[in-house]
Amino acid sequence: MKVIFAKMQKVYNFNAGPAMLPVEVMQKAQDEFLNYKNSGMSIMEVSHRGKHFEEVLNSADKNLRNLLSIPENYSVAFFPGGATFQFSAVPMNLIAKEEHGDYSLTGVWSVKAFQEAKKLGYGANCIFDGKEIQYSRIPKITEENISKDSKYLFITSNNTIYGSCYKKIPDVSSVPMIADMTSDLLSRKIDVSKFAYIFAGAQKNIGPSGLTVGIIRNDLLEMKKGPVPVLLDFKQYFGSKSLYNTPPTFSIYIANLVFEWCLQKGGLEVIEKENDAKAELLYTYLENSNLYTLPIEKNSRSNMNVVFHLKDKSLEKKFIDESELLGLHGLAGHRDAGGMRASIYNAMPIKGVETLIEFLKTFEEKNA
Amino acid sequence: MKVIFAKMQKVYNFNAGPAMLPVEVMQKAQDEFLNYKNSGMSIMEVSHRGKHFEEVLNSADKNLRNLLSIPENYSVAFFPGGATFQFSAVPMNLIAKEEHGDYSLTGVWSVKAFQEAKKLGYGANCIFDGKEIQYSRIPKITEENISKDSKYLFITSNNTIYGSCYKKIPDVSSVPMIADMTSDLLSRKIDVSKFAYIFAGAQKNIGPSGLTVGIIRNDLLEMKKGPVPVLLDFKQYFGSKSLYNTPPTFSIYIANLVFEWCLQKGGLEVIEKENDAKAELLYTYLENSNLYTLPIEKNSRSNMNVVFHLKDKSLEKKFIDESELLGLHGLAGHRDAGGMRASIYNAMPIKGVETLIEFLKTFEEKNA
Repeated sequence: MKVIFAKMQKVYNFNAGPAMLPVEVMQKAQDEFLNYKNSGMSIMEVSHRGKHFEEVLNSADKNLRNLLSIPENYSVAFFPGGATFQFSAVPMNLIAKEEHGDYSLTGVWSVKAFQEAKKLGYGANCIFDGKEIQYSRIPKITEENISKDSKYLFITSNNTIYGSCYKKIPDVSSVPMIADMTSDLLSRKIDVSKFAYIFAGAQKNIGPSGLTVGIIRNDLLEMKKGPVPVLLDFKQYFGSKSLYNTPPTFSIYIANLVFEWCLQKGGLEVIEKENDAKAELLYTYLENSNLYTLPIEKNSRSNMNVVFHLKDKSLEKKFIDESELLGLHGLAGHRDAGGMRASIYNAMPIKGVETLIEFLKTFEEKNA
Repeated sequence: MKVIFAKMQKVYNFNAGPAMLPVEVMQKAQDEFLNYKNSGMSIMEVSHRGKHFEEVLNSADKNLRNLLSIPENYSVAFFPGGATFQFSAVPMNLIAKEEHGDYSLTGVWSVKAFQEAKKLGYGANCIFDGKEIQYSRIPKITEENISKDSKYLFITSNNTIYGSCYKKIPDVSSVPMIADMTSDLLSRKIDVSKFAYIFAGAQKNIGPSGLTVGIIRNDLLEMKKGPVPVLLDFKQYFGSKSLYNTPPTFSIYIANLVFEWCLQKGGLEVIEKENDAKAELLYTYLENSNLYTLPIEKNSRSNMNVVFHLKDKSLEKKFIDESELLGLHGLAGHRDAGGMRASIYNAMPIKGVETLIEFLKTFEEKNA
C-alpha cells in the first residue's frame, strides 16, 4: 500500500473544515500571490473599491449564480465570519420578538441556531428533535409539520458532525425555508427557488474560513421588525453588494477561484455524480465490513461527511495513529459524535477515497 | 526619475486598506502556501482545532502581547469581520439601553460608531463634533469633557479618511476608554493600560481584511446587560480564545507573520521612529510646496494617512494618471474627504516615500 500511495499525493486531508481545497485553485493562488494580474500587488493588498477586486466580486457573483442557476429575484452576498453569525441574523431580520420560526434539530448546528434565536428573545419552535436517537435520522418534513403562525422553517441541510443530510430537501412552501448549507452547498444540484434564504460558511466546499455566502429571495430583505447590527442587517448588507465596509477580500478571491474550478469541471451535475460515486464506494465498503459500523440510517447519510465507528473502541487511537502515518489526515470524529469521520468534499479526489478504503481494509485484516 | 525607480520595486502601494503588507511576510506566505511546515497541506486547509493552527493562534497571542506589552489582566481575541462589527458590539456588551457612552466624532468612522449605538437603541452622547471644521482638528479630551453618568469614552485614534490622529492619547481614567485603532495599531508605542478596550480591523498594519484584533481589560467582560449575538458577545468570544466557532484561520496566520516581522524589526519603538521619519519627510515637503496644501492642523496630522490637496483641483486627474503610470498606486483621496491621500503604513519602505516626493516635486515643477 505504501508503494501505491507514494506515487500519489503526499497527504489526503479528510478534515471537516477548514478542509482541503482544489489543488489547481491553491496552485493558481500561490502563483499570483505576490503579483496579481501584473499589478505588482497581491490581490490581498488592493483596495476593495478598486478595479481588480471589483472584477473579482462581480465574477464571484456571476459564477455562483451560474453554478446554482440562482433566479433573478435572489441576491447574493459574501459575509464576513462563519455561519454562526447567521444564526443571530435570521430571527433578527425576519421576525418580531413575539413571532416564531420552526426549527428542525438534526444536529449540533441546528440546535445552536435554535438556542441563539431563543437567547435573543425570539420565538423558536422545535418541530423535530433528533437528540434521543443520537441524530441518526433526518426527518421527512412536510407542510403538516409547520406550526401555526410560524414565520419560517429553519433546517441544516447537511450535518457535518453527525454525518447526516436531507437527501431530499423538504417540500414546504407555506413559510420561507431557511437552510444552513455550510457543508453541502456546491456539492449537489439544488433548486434555489425552493429556499427563501441559503447561507453557507465557506470552509468546506467554497474557500477559507471567515467567509459566508448568502443567497436570499429579495422579498425577505423587507421583513425586518427592529434594529439589527449593521453587518448582520440583510437589507444593508445585500443592498451594498457586500461592500458596506471592507469585506474579506482575499477569501472572496479564493472562493471565486473555487467557483471557476467547479464550472470548469462541468458544474454541479458532474460534481454531484463524482460525490455520489465517492460516497457510494466508501459506504459500500463500510456496510460490508465486520470491524466498522455506520451510526446513521441509510437514507439519511451524508455524501460529504462519512461518519463511522470501530466496533472495538479500544482500537480508535491505533486507527488514527496508523492513518496519520500513511498521510490520511483528519479522520478523528468530532468530540460530540465520537468515532471516525472522513470528510470527502468536492476537492477530495476519488483516489483519496480509494486510498482510504485500502487502509480500512488493511486495518480490518490486521485487527479483525 | 524613471531610472531611480526602475532599480527599486515595481509598484508602491499607497492604498488606505486593504494595504500593502511587508514583502518578507508575503514571500514567506507564498513559499509555504501549499505545504505548511511539511504537513502536505496549506495552513488554510488545516483544522482550527489541530496542532498547526493551535500553534499559530498561541503564537499570535504571545507575539501581540509582546509587541504591545499587554498587561496580564487583558485578553486578546481575533474576531471575524471588520471594525464595523465592534461599533455594534461595544454598546451591546457594555451598557444597558437607558445608559450612555460618550463619543468624540473626529471623522467618518467615529460618526458611524456613534450612529450605530443610537440605532440599536443605546444612549450615545457626542462630546466633540468635528463636522463644521471638516474634521481638520483633533480635540484635547480631559476628564472635564466626560458627561455625567457616562459609561465609556469612545475615540477613533487615527482617522484614515481625513488623515488626522490623536498625537497624545486622552488621559481619561474615570470611565473606560474604548479606542478604534484600526489604522494605527502597531504603528507606534501605546500604553495599553490607559485603554479598557482596543480594537483594530486588520487591513492596515496587521493583515488581510475580514479580521479584527480585540484587546480587552478583563473586567469589561462582565458588563453585559442584555442578550448579545453570540459572535459579538465579548465574554463568549474572548472566553473561547477566538475558537467559539471557526475563526478566519488564514488571516490570523498572516497577522502572526506580521507580528513576527514587527518583532524582528525591533518592535514598536523602532517602527514608530521609522514612521515618524517617513511622515516628517512627506509633510515637510508638502508644507513648503506651492502646489499642495494640507487640510489638517499640524498637531493633529496622522503619520499613517497623509492627506493633501492640490490648490488647483483641475490638476487632480492628471496627478492620479501620472502617478499610476510611475507605479505610485492608490493616491486618490477618499470620496468623503477629496484630494489626495498617501497611506504610509508600517510596510511602506522609506524609499517609497522618497519616490513619492520625487514625483510630487516633478509634478510641481511642471505644473506650478
